[in-house]
Amino acid sequence: MPTYTAPVRDSLFVLNDVLDIGRYSNLPGFANASPDLVEAILEEAGRFCAEVLQPLNRIGDEVGCKRADDGSVTTPPGFKAAWAQFCEAGWPTLTVPEEYGGQGLPQVVGTAVSEYILSANHSFEMYQGLTSGAIASLLVKGSDELKRRYVPNMATGKWTGTMNLTEPHCGTDLGLLKTRAEENPDASYSITGTKIFISSGEHDLAENIIHLVLAKRAGAPDNVKGISLFVVPKFLVNEDGSLGARNPVTCGALEKKMGIHGNSTCVLNYDGAKGWLVGEPEKGLQAMFIMMNAARLGVGLQGTAQGEVAYQNAAAYARDRRQSRALNPEDRDPDAKADPIIVHPDVRRMLMESRAWNEAGRALVLWGALQVDLTRRSQDEVERQTADDLLGLITPVIKGYLTDKGFQAAVHGQQVLGGHGYIREHGMEQFVRDARITQIYEGTNGIQAMDLVGRKLPKDGGRAVRAFFELVGREIADAGAAGDPAGVAAALEPALKDLQAATMWLAQNGTADPDNAGAGAYAYMELMGLVSLGWMWLKMASAAKRALDGGAEDRPFHDAKLITARFYAERELPLSQALRRKIEAGAETLMKIPAEAF
Amino acid sequence: MPTYTAPVRDSLFVLNDVLDIGRYSNLPGFANASPDLVEAILEEAGRFCAEVLQPLNRIGDEVGCKRADDGSVTTPPGFKAAWAQFCEAGWPTLTVPEEYGGQGLPQVVGTAVSEYILSANHSFEMYQGLTSGAIASLLVKGSDELKRRYVPNMATGKWTGTMNLTEPHCGTDLGLLKTRAEENPDASYSITGTKIFISSGEHDLAENIIHLVLAKRAGAPDNVKGISLFVVPKFLVNEDGSLGARNPVTCGALEKKMGIHGNSTCVLNYDGAKGWLVGEPEKGLQAMFIMMNAARLGVGLQGTAQGEVAYQNAAAYARDRRQSRALNPEDRDPDAKADPIIVHPDVRRMLMESRAWNEAGRALVLWGALQVDLTRRSQDEVERQTADDLLGLITPVIKGYLTDKGFQAAVHGQQVLGGHGYIREHGMEQFVRDARITQIYEGTNGIQAMDLVGRKLPKDGGRAVRAFFELVGREIADAGAAGDPAGVAAALEPALKDLQAATMWLAQNGTADPDNAGAGAYAYMELMGLVSLGWMWLKMASAAKRALDGGAEDRPFHDAKLITARFYAERELPLSQALRRKIEAGAETLMKIPAEAF
Repeated sequence: MPTYTAPVRDSLFVLNDVLDIGRYSNLPGFANASPDLVEAILEEAGRFCAEVLQPLNRIGDEVGCKRADDGSVTTPPGFKAAWAQFCEAGWPTLTVPEEYGGQGLPQVVGTAVSEYILSANHSFEMYQGLTSGAIASLLVKGSDELKRRYVPNMATGKWTGTMNLTEPHCGTDLGLLKTRAEENPDASYSITGTKIFISSGEHDLAENIIHLVLAKRAGAPDNVKGISLFVVPKFLVNEDGSLGARNPVTCGALEKKMGIHGNSTCVLNYDGAKGWLVGEPEKGLQAMFIMMNAARLGVGLQGTAQGEVAYQNAAAYARDRRQSRALNPEDRDPDAKADPIIVHPDVRRMLMESRAWNEAGRALVLWGALQVDLTRRSQDEVERQTADDLLGLITPVIKGYLTDKGFQAAVHGQQVLGGHGYIREHGMEQFVRDARITQIYEGTNGIQAMDLVGRKLPKDGGRAVRAFFELVGREIADAGAAGDPAGVAAALEPALKDLQAATMWLAQNGTADPDNAGAGAYAYMELMGLVSLGWMWLKMASAAKRALDGGAEDRPFHDAKLITARFYAERELPLSQALRRKIEAGAETLMKIPAEAF
Repeated sequence: MPTYTAPVRDSLFVLNDVLDIGRYSNLPGFANASPDLVEAILEEAGRFCAEVLQPLNRIGDEVGCKRADDGSVTTPPGFKAAWAQFCEAGWPTLTVPEEYGGQGLPQVVGTAVSEYILSANHSFEMYQGLTSGAIASLLVKGSDELKRRYVPNMATGKWTGTMNLTEPHCGTDLGLLKTRAEENPDASYSITGTKIFISSGEHDLAENIIHLVLAKRAGAPDNVKGISLFVVPKFLVNEDGSLGARNPVTCGALEKKMGIHGNSTCVLNYDGAKGWLVGEPEKGLQAMFIMMNAARLGVGLQGTAQGEVAYQNAAAYARDRRQSRALNPEDRDPDAKADPIIVHPDVRRMLMESRAWNEAGRALVLWGALQVDLTRRSQDEVERQTADDLLGLITPVIKGYLTDKGFQAAVHGQQVLGGHGYIREHGMEQFVRDARITQIYEGTNGIQAMDLVGRKLPKDGGRAVRAFFELVGREIADAGAAGDPAGVAAALEPALKDLQAATMWLAQNGTADPDNAGAGAYAYMELMGLVSLGWMWLKMASAAKRALDGGAEDRPFHDAKLITARFYAERELPLSQALRRKIEAGAETLMKIPAEAF
C-alpha cells in the first residue's frame, strides 16, 4: 500500500528561501502569514492528509462512486466522514476572504496546502477544488445578493460547487453549446440541457451543490458570444438561507473512467432548473474564465502532486528492494546477495528526473500563486500589472507542462517497481491513471499550447513575454555574476535564447500562415516549460547556495538541491535546441497529407 | 467502440518494396512465400483479426479472467470459441517447421500476421505468443524425445505454453530464485516453488499447458550459474500422447493488473510437480534466453501494434468530430459551424508522430524478423553471422524503444479524443493500459538499455555496432547520391554521428566508471532507436521514390510515405544532440545524492 509524507521542508524552502514571501508582509493577508504560522499550518495539513485522506485514496479507486436509481450518488466509503473532518478543521476556508467567513490567507499558502491534499487523494480534493473555483467566479462576477446567499456556506464546505461547460457534442468549442436559459417573470431563468463530465456533479458530502452553468439565453447569438453564466443550486435557497425545493437538475449517469474513481463525474440533466445570471448576460465565458484560470493552476499542481506521491513510493521501494549488484564493486553490500536497486544508475535516472520536475514544478506553481496574490492584493499598479501579465502567460505552461511531467513522473514511479508497479495492489498504477486526466481536463494540453501561442504571446503587443524574457535574463546574469553554483545559468542562457528565437520565428511565420503557429504550439509550450523549470532551478540553486554560505544546519538538504539543479542543467536543458527545431520546421509536413489518407 | 483494420497495404510495402523478401526465394520456406500467397495470408489474417478477435478485446478488458476455488481459470466470454476458430484456421502453425506439423513459412511473414493479432486483441495473442516462445526453446534445446512429445500439439494450439521465471522476491535478478528441482529415480525432477506474473499460466483454452520453468537443482550453485530449465506439463503426457495425471502445478491467484485483463496472469504454485530437464543442467538461462529474445521482438511489436490501433481510432475520430474552426479560413467548411478536428495542426501533430513511429516500428520489427530468418536459414556463413550480430544489437532497441513509442502513440490516441478518451466506453484508455505492460515485462526497458550498453556494444570487440554503423552509413550515402527524396539522409547523418560519438564516449568512460555506462544507457537506447527508425524512414522514402518513379498507381500512398519521412527527419531526428548530451553528462549528478536522501 502506498504511503505519503507531505514535503513540508520543501514547501517552506520555496516559500521562505526562494520566493521570500516575508517581503510581502505589507500586503493584506500576508501579515497574518508569519513563518511560524505557515509552518504550523503546513505541518498540520500534512498530518491530516497523510492520516485521513491518503488511506482513502485506494478505496476511492476500488469502490468508486455509486449512483442509485433515484439519481443520488454515494461517494466511496470513508469520504463522507473525512469531508466532515476536513470542514470541521476549517481547511476549505484558508484563503476565503474574512468577510465571507474565511481565514483570508494568501493564495500561495493555500496552494502549498492544496498540493498535499492532491497527493494524498486527488479525487477527494476535487470536491473542494471545484468549490474554490466557483467561489472565485462568484466573488468577482456575482451580485452582492448572490455572494451573500451562496459564498459563506461554500466557504465552509457545507455546500460544494461545480462548473458545467461540456456537452456531448462540445467541449473545446463552447460556441456550439445547446443548453438553453429561458427568462422567468421573476428575473430567474429556467435552464434546460445536458452537461457531461461534470466533476463532483452529484454526491452525498454536502447539503447542497451550487452549479455554475454555461447556457444560451433565448435570442442570444448562437455562438461563443451568446453564452451566459448561471448559478443553479441543487436545492433552492430561501431568503433566510434555509434549503427550499429540489431543483430539477439530476445525475443521469456516472461516467466510467480510466481513473479518479473517487470523484463523481456526472452526466447532469437540467430540466427547467431554476438559475440566476452571474454577471452580465452573454458575458458568461469571461466569468467562467476566472474559474478556469484558477482551475488551470490547480490542475498543473495536480500533475506535480501526482508526480510527488509516485516519486515518494518509488524511492521507498528502491531503497528497500534488492535486485542485482551495484555496477561499482565498492558500492556492493558485502552481507547480502543483491543490492537495493537505488544503487543502479538507471533507477536513479527515473528518480532524479521525477525529483527535478516535481521540485521545480512545486516552485513554479507557488510562484504562480504568489502572482495571483499580487494581482489581488498589491497596492502598486505596476507590480499588479506585471504579476497579471506573467501569470496569464505562464498559466497555460503550468497547466500543460506540469501535467505532462507529472504524468511522466507517475509512469517513472510505476516503472521503478517493474512488474509490481503494474499490479493494482501496490497502488502505483492508480497514480498513472489518475494523473492522466490532468493532461485532458480544463482544456487539453494542446488547447493550453494554442492559448499560449495564439492568445498569450501576442496579447498587448507581446508585453508579457518581453517581461518574462527580461526577468529570466536578468536572473541568469545575476546568478552568473554570483558564481553560478550549479551551472544552471550557463545552461539556461542558450535555452532562453532558443525560446526567444522561437518566439521571433512564430511572430514572423505564424501571422503569414496561422498553421505555422498551430504546428509549433506544443513544442513552444514545452520549450517555455523547460525554461520555466530551469528558471526555478536557478532560483533554488541560488537559495541553496545562500543558505549554505550562511551556515545552514541541514547541509544535505541544500546539497541535494544543488545536485538536482546541476542534473537539470546538464541533462534536461539541452533539449531546447530540438524543440526550437521542431517549431521552426513549420506546418508543411503536418498539413500536407489529405484528411482521408489518415 | 473501437474498430480495427489490418494495415495490409503497409505490411506488403515493407515486405516487398523495403525488405524485398523476394530476393531470398532461394532460402528454405521463402520459396513458398510468393507475393500472392503472402498477400492472401495477410488479407485473411486481417479479416479474422478484425471480425473475430477485435470485438472480444473490450469484453476481455471488462470481464477479465476468473479463477474458481479449485484453481481453474475461465477466460473472458468468447475467448474459448475464438481460440478454437484460430486453431482450426491454422494460424498458430504458420512458422512452425513442417516436420512438427507446421507450415514452415518465414518468420518475417508470421511477424506481419502477429502484428494484426496484437492490434486486435493483445491479451488473446499472449496465449499464442508464449506458446511460440516455448516451442522455440524446445526446438533448439530440447531432446528429440521432448520435441516429439510436446511440440506437435503446441504447434496446433491444442496445447499452449508458458515461461516461468519471476518469483516474489526476484524478477530481474534470477540468480536469487528459490524454486527447487529434486531429481527422481526415473530421471524426471520434482519441482517445488512459487512463480508469479505467469502470463497464460492457467486457462480453459487448451487441453494442456506446457510450462517452461527455471529452477535450481539440489547442489547447484545458488546463483545465476545454478539455474536449469524444466518442462512441466499441467497434465502428464503418456507415451502414446494421451493425457495422464494432473501434475501438482496450480494457479494460486490471478494477479489484479492495470490492463491486459483478458490474459490470465497467474501465481503458480509448484508442489512437487513432475518436470524434465530441457538442455543441459545449470544452462537454463541460456535456454530461456532463446525464448526471451524471440519474446523481446514480440513485445516490441506489441508496442507498435497498440500504437497502430490507437492511431487508427484516433484518426477516425479526428475525421469525424467537429470542434472549432480551421486556423486558415480557406480550410473551413462553409456548410458547418465547426470543422473536423483533423484540420487542427496540433491534432495532426499527434497523429503524424504516431504514424511516424508506427510505420517505422513495423518496418524495424519486420527487418528484425528477417534477420531471424537469415540466422536460421541462410546458407551463407557471413550473412548468417551478420544477421545474428545485428539482431542481437537491435533486439533491446526494438523491445525498449518501440514499446516506449507505442505507449506514447496510445497516449496520443487517447489525447485526440479529449475527455472522451478518458471514458472507458471509447476503448482508448484500454490501449494505454494494455500498452503500458510492454515497457515492463520481458525485462523492463531499463534492463534492455543495460543489455544494449553493457552486453551488446562490447560483444566481440564491438563487431555488431561497427557493422550497424557501416550499414546505416552506406545507406545514407546511397540515398544522398540518389537525391535524398525526403531529406532523411541529410538529417540522419548528424544523428548517426551523434550516436557514434556517444558510443565512443561510453567505450572510453564506461570502463573507467561503470556507473557512466549505466547513467547513459537509457539515452543511448533512445538514440539508437531514433537512428534506427530514421534508418527505416530512409529505406521507406527510397522505396516510395522508386515506386513513384516507376509509375506506381497508388500515388497518394507513396506521397504520404515521403511526407511522413520528411516529418520524421525535420521534427524527430534533431533530438539526437540532446540525447548525446545526456549520455556525455555522465553519472555524477545521478549518483551523488545519498540513498537515504531520496
